[in-house]
Amino acid sequence: MKKIGIVGFRGYSGAELVQIGKRHGGLEVFLMEHRDEKAPAKGLATMSTSAEAVAEQGLDGVFLATPPEVSMELAGGYLAAGAKVVDLSGAFRLGTGENYQRWYKEEHTQPELLAEAVYSIPELHRDQVPGKRLISNPGCYPTAASLALAPLVDVIDRQAGVVCDAKSGVSGAGRKPSLTTHFCEVTENFTAYSILYHRHVAEVLQNTGLREAEFSFTAQLLPVHRGILETIYFRASDVKSAAELAGMYETRYGNEPFIRIHEPGKVPDLTAVARTNFCDIGVVFDGRTKRGVVVAAIDNLVKGAAGQAMQNMNLALGFPETQGLL
Amino acid sequence: MKKIGIVGFRGYSGAELVQIGKRHGGLEVFLMEHRDEKAPAKGLATMSTSAEAVAEQGLDGVFLATPPEVSMELAGGYLAAGAKVVDLSGAFRLGTGENYQRWYKEEHTQPELLAEAVYSIPELHRDQVPGKRLISNPGCYPTAASLALAPLVDVIDRQAGVVCDAKSGVSGAGRKPSLTTHFCEVTENFTAYSILYHRHVAEVLQNTGLREAEFSFTAQLLPVHRGILETIYFRASDVKSAAELAGMYETRYGNEPFIRIHEPGKVPDLTAVARTNFCDIGVVFDGRTKRGVVVAAIDNLVKGAAGQAMQNMNLALGFPETQGLL
Amino acid sequence: MKKIGIVGFRGYSGAELVQIGKRHGGLEVFLMEHRDEKAPAKGLATMSTSAEAVAEQGLDGVFLATPPEVSMELAGGYLAAGAKVVDLSGAFRLGTGENYQRWYKEEHTQPELLAEAVYSIPELHRDQVPGKRLISNPGCYPTAASLALAPLVDVIDRQAGVVCDAKSGVSGAGRKPSLTTHFCEVTENFTAYSILYHRHVAEVLQNTGLREAEFSFTAQLLPVHRGILETIYFRASDVKSAAELAGMYETRYGNEPFIRIHEPGKVPDLTAVARTNFCDIGVVFDGRTKRGVVVAAIDNLVKGAAGQAMQNMNLALGFPETQGLL
Amino acid sequence: MKKIGIVGFRGYSGAELVQIGKRHGGLEVFLMEHRDEKAPAKGLATMSTSAEAVAEQGLDGVFLATPPEVSMELAGGYLAAGAKVVDLSGAFRLGTGENYQRWYKEEHTQPELLAEAVYSIPELHRDQVPGKRLISNPGCYPTAASLALAPLVDVIDRQAGVVCDAKSGVSGAGRKPSLTTHFCEVTENFTAYSILYHRHVAEVLQNTGLREAEFSFTAQLLPVHRGILETIYFRASDVKSAAELAGMYETRYGNEPFIRIHEPGKVPDLTAVARTNFCDIGVVFDGRTKRGVVVAAIDNLVKGAAGQAMQNMNLALGFPETQGLL
Repeated sequence: MKKIGIVGFRGYSGAELVQIGKRHGGLEVFLMEHRDEKAPAKGLATMSTSAEAVAEQGLDGVFLATPPEVSMELAGGYLAAGAKVVDLSGAFRLGTGENYQRWYKEEHTQPELLAEAVYSIPELHRDQVPGKRLISNPGCYPTAASLALAPLVDVIDRQAGVVCDAKSGVSGAGRKPSLTTHFCEVTENFTAYSILYHRHVAEVLQNTGLREAEFSFTAQLLPVHRGILETIYFRASDVKSAAELAGMYETRYGNEPFIRIHEPGKVPDLTAVARTNFCDIGVVFDGRTKRGVVVAAIDNLVKGAAGQAMQNMNLALGFPETQGLL
Repeated sequence: MKKIGIVGFRGYSGAELVQIGKRHGGLEVFLMEHRDEKAPAKGLATMSTSAEAVAEQGLDGVFLATPPEVSMELAGGYLAAGAKVVDLSGAFRLGTGENYQRWYKEEHTQPELLAEAVYSIPELHRDQVPGKRLISNPGCYPTAASLALAPLVDVIDRQAGVVCDAKSGVSGAGRKPSLTTHFCEVTENFTAYSILYHRHVAEVLQNTGLREAEFSFTAQLLPVHRGILETIYFRASDVKSAAELAGMYETRYGNEPFIRIHEPGKVPDLTAVARTNFCDIGVVFDGRTKRGVVVAAIDNLVKGAAGQAMQNMNLALGFPETQGLL
Repeated sequence: MKKIGIVGFRGYSGAELVQIGKRHGGLEVFLMEHRDEKAPAKGLATMSTSAEAVAEQGLDGVFLATPPEVSMELAGGYLAAGAKVVDLSGAFRLGTGENYQRWYKEEHTQPELLAEAVYSIPELHRDQVPGKRLISNPGCYPTAASLALAPLVDVIDRQAGVVCDAKSGVSGAGRKPSLTTHFCEVTENFTAYSILYHRHVAEVLQNTGLREAEFSFTAQLLPVHRGILETIYFRASDVKSAAELAGMYETRYGNEPFIRIHEPGKVPDLTAVARTNFCDIGVVFDGRTKRGVVVAAIDNLVKGAAGQAMQNMNLALGFPETQGLL
Repeated sequence: MKKIGIVGFRGYSGAELVQIGKRHGGLEVFLMEHRDEKAPAKGLATMSTSAEAVAEQGLDGVFLATPPEVSMELAGGYLAAGAKVVDLSGAFRLGTGENYQRWYKEEHTQPELLAEAVYSIPELHRDQVPGKRLISNPGCYPTAASLALAPLVDVIDRQAGVVCDAKSGVSGAGRKPSLTTHFCEVTENFTAYSILYHRHVAEVLQNTGLREAEFSFTAQLLPVHRGILETIYFRASDVKSAAELAGMYETRYGNEPFIRIHEPGKVPDLTAVARTNFCDIGVVFDGRTKRGVVVAAIDNLVKGAAGQAMQNMNLALGFPETQGLL
């Protein structure tokens, strides 16, 4: 048994982490009470968020399900106290402080931690995690987009550009009440936001090698609780069929426990991935005009947040990567 | 007062036509009972769907809110009986029988009517309606896409392709029960269908002059009752800003009563157009990378079906185009 | 033309009032900007909420779509400035300060205004409105319950008690964001609150003459935007059939423009009343066991708030009661 | 390992059974293909629905997630083939053929099986299951109502009557498409049906000893996928407080693994029980007027169908009652 703490356990991702942690089997879970965030009495131990408490309690790992500025404030102390840290915020996702400043419009206050951090979608970066203390968990949109694009980047016509039309459930906007998440504003509605300029674009570029001019992205709010579906459009002059592309996905992901490839011409929906850590991918291709569409679906709170974070914590602490997630 | 009949008044588009007809002010509405479709007793006159009945009653116009095969069967008789016909099905939308056969996978049984018919999105084709007896009302998806693209086609980089990611409410799938429209299959879900090969693509190509290889389209099912939102991606090397594009829309549509252009950088949502005949359009453009996004929203049952059909009937019968619709 | 002002025009009821006011035909509408609530630029005149402004502008009437404490603060000044006031809050609904204190848990700060105010569900109290300056618009739940119970109170077995199980859409909770109205907390959920002790109970008792021990009420939150449906259970030893009861409703409400009685054994749903000022009522009765159920449905924002307020303003200003509402 | 078959695995309850069966740990699951219902290729064995096949395969148990007439047709053969049968339909729920005829409006074709069958909500009837071959699984509404009422029946004022206002998600209406379950008819709506005369009333009377004249029940359709919440109103002259009642529930259900009692004055909602086998119960009581409300919530597909059926199968086959369900 190892000990892990969760900061931000009341948010939607944090609550999902608590559930996954409870059924993990190898973890003792501590709810770390940040400021006036009191833990509900549900049989889990609680503790403070101080680095001293982490050292005293001897935590092996800490999840930060917190805003970037809180993650920057807390991460260093936990590392010093000997814990591995998996951060779910955007604080350590972009490789350099310049890049962070460009996309988050704020100065990065912990450049040394940023330099130390490793960014990990396990299916793409798992080899880089062992030995690292600070793991940056990817954003929800970039997880689906990067997994869908990684096998394609070498065959697509990059100059023709890639379009990623992304749709997310409301839990992606967080649990903090706002007019944006008010039921009456969301039900029977559908809204596009952050068109072309979403922060998550930077991650996709970083993960795929695409240039900004080659990648158009729109985030949109679906009237559903959870789930992300991305419809990605591309051209590929040298590809002949959807079967050929599906074969490339199979080659790349055939052994991945959390990726399921649909048969050629079929695409996933949200229901199939709800409350799972799966990323489902399907591809359609018109061999005559060389246009293709790949659809990727995940649960934004699981594979897009808490589930993937547990994959990363498992890698960091030496558990099987799938523990607690199947 | 003119007399109009509605075939298919029980479907969602037909029921919307009944409502619009009742508040029109210049129309006496007859519910035409097709086969075993009995009219509810709601104070409107009923009649049979025979051509003789149309002649006897002296109908000035008939709306066909019916499947293509029923429209082909009924339209000719009504024209012979002296009525103008506005057909909401796909029967007369594509200019030639070959094109119909290609996209609808069936032979067209009324080639002479097809040759006579005029296709009309009034904002693009209203000059062609006067004097015509058979008006083909456009599909819901092509209405939004064509209105959004018409002002753009001369400035976009056609070889880079246009992507139209379309989302529709469930009423677009019709009132006939099926597993696809079952509440439990739709709620908390989002599904892509007819990827790249939707019948409506043919109409957009016809309306915009784009070639098939230049236009990628995906239809998707939103968990809402009504509304279509289309997110359209393009490149335009010679454009400098969203303001420039918004200006082009204003020039084209400034006097249109049913088109509202958002200020540059702002885009519409579904709520704003629900239960109206408006098409709302907004455009975002990145002058640095020359990539743009235009978002168009309509109510699929109104501007995408019954409302536009009334615009067309108004044109055909000599009423002001907006009567019954504001 | 008369001049009316609306305070609280940004809330859901206030926004509904703006829409009704715009299509009324006899009203010039002013948006009265309370504190930092700026009016959107939509072609309507704006003004301040001061009593001086009301006098200067010569307003004939003011709607207060505000919390009770704001209504108490503003109403007196507007009356002094010569305007009629229709208040949509709970401030003036209960006849005495003692009653107000008991149900609202706060002292009433304007007992003289309270004594002057007239409470009006027009179908029950319209004779009392003419000549009054301050009209208290009923709560949403009591509107449906009182209209459903008024024709029944003399035939039901009072000692057996009446149960009113009420369900409301989320707009009833107001536009202010809170966890209660967060989409993710509401969708796929259903929640009971204020069981037995809801403030609105006092109004129903006042309107029907039932005693507290005879009336059990539960308010519940439906995952819909708008609408209230109340399922009301009673016993009536001397009644023989649903038809007999439906006849009593017809006798009472047969000439009411906003009440529709279903045929015996049929009950209404929310869709039928959405965005209308109707109250639909249907009754089921088991003559053998003498148990009955009456179901009443309204749109909480229209007949339950803004629509009924306009009925009352029409009465106060001398317009036909239905103007702007059909 | 024991072998069980599932007839009707495509329906919502059947599909839920498949999921529970797969994670049970002690069961080998066979999908039994009824008529033209082909099993999807998902790694589970398939077989025919003939009694010979059941004998040949040596099934230990069969779940019938089928309509009553199919259950009557199939059950006898399976018992003869040596399998225990848990039937999820209404075929064997009412003790006598007369009662069945009265509530189901059809003659019971298998009176001997009916006489043999045991009806089991395990928390109320588990002692009667061992040794029985045919177990009748309760209806969804009666499960919640009976569990909520069982501890109360001796303290409530029966002559004052009990009101059960029940709300169910759409999956309770089954997977077969109909206008009733069409998304556009359900979303933003709420509908009452089978007022006072629902078939499930008979079960509640049977389970609680209440007489028909003492129990008023209304079933209503919520715009949610899954979940039942029942708001039950009663009077109890000799009760003093909610705490006293909560204590009675604790006494009765304190050791039940699938029943959770809320603290006095608090009530459950649907989210808390979604996708679980729990029945959550909370009680409110006004000691002054002696009126009470108990709210019970279950997932209609789990505790209201498949989960409870697995409890019963576990009892029949000798597994721990909770296996596969926690």
